[in-house]
Amino acid sequence: MELLEERIRREARVLPGNIIKVDGFLNHRVDVAFMRELASEIRRRFSLDGLTAVLTVEASGIALATVCALEFGVPMIFAKKAKSDNIEGGLYQSEIFSYTYKKKVTLLMSAQWLKSGDKVLIVDDFLANGEALRGLVDIVNQAGAELLGIGVAIEKGFQGGGDRLRSQGVNVQSLAIIERADENGVVFRS
Amino acid sequence: MELLEERIRREARVLPGNIIKVDGFLNHRVDVAFMRELASEIRRRFSLDGLTAVLTVEASGIALATVCALEFGVPMIFAKKAKSDNIEGGLYQSEIFSYTYKKKVTLLMSAQWLKSGDKVLIVDDFLANGEALRGLVDIVNQAGAELLGIGVAIEKGFQGGGDRLRSQGVNVQSLAIIERADENGVVFRS
Repeated sequence: MELLEERIRREARVLPGNIIKVDGFLNHRVDVAFMRELASEIRRRFSLDGLTAVLTVEASGIALATVCALEFGVPMIFAKKAKSDNIEGGLYQSEIFSYTYKKKVTLLMSAQWLKSGDKVLIVDDFLANGEALRGLVDIVNQAGAELLGIGVAIEKGFQGGGDRLRSQGVNVQSLAIIERADENGVVFRS
Repeated sequence: MELLEERIRREARVLPGNIIKVDGFLNHRVDVAFMRELASEIRRRFSLDGLTAVLTVEASGIALATVCALEFGVPMIFAKKAKSDNIEGGLYQSEIFSYTYKKKVTLLMSAQWLKSGDKVLIVDDFLANGEALRGLVDIVNQAGAELLGIGVAIEKGFQGGGDRLRSQGVNVQSLAIIERADENGVVFRS
């Protein structure tokens, strides 16, 4: 998506460790009007007939997922990362490795909000190693729900998570795929 | 707000420890169309002339804050809870006590996204002890920005956080204030 690639070229900063900071519009200060453009592009890339929910995982995916859910006319459900005691029984659980926090994290979702018969689209702001998304796909499978695909704003293609999911037959659509990022700038997959 | 009180009466479950679960529409599965109704009511309760940003804190405040920011035509900025190493220097910081996690947590916000001259509205899904909101107010003050007020969906009035902020001169508007919640149901402040 040219509009997103341009914005990344203009505003992203590349930090050591292949960290690509886009916190001026995507995941700290969020340009919500721009998220609406991303949501329109995500809609264009999927067949969303019968969609019942947009799924994401806390925290930074919630903003884009909320805008997508508004635009698509369905609720948004976000998986929680195990840590609070405000969640009781009746849960789908999936253990992932969080590269951000450098430890195992368990994704949780109340079973009552996702059932067989649901048709869902997973949305996230970033896809790198794909662990969080792998956990969400696992939860969708546990629920017996139908996964229409995964829509992501920015994929770090060189970390392989997106291609791993694709090789398992998941329809992953990333609006910008970064193949290389260093002090010379950012190169996108064409 | 009658619409919200009705929904709480119909759907909330009260758990031991004064936990009020509204995770079917507010903070797990999010009814984003209903969030739009809440955003309209928040707009009605404040004078938002010159507003430059909606602020919240991760994670569950992000959905309502995103919808408010869309409706009000400004960006949404969410403070992070210290834990990842994806955040570098140039930060506003405020230490709070998280009753959810039963430990001290530091709220972080990049200084570049909030400046003197900004006019901000803080939005959150829940107000109980008010620690997270106290931390956000502290950050707004550190930035020298102007606080127009705090808009909250559900306040647990019996925990005192909202009235503490009001006594400090903050314009706190909660769309539903619960004064008592037990096995007999929920009683609202009138």
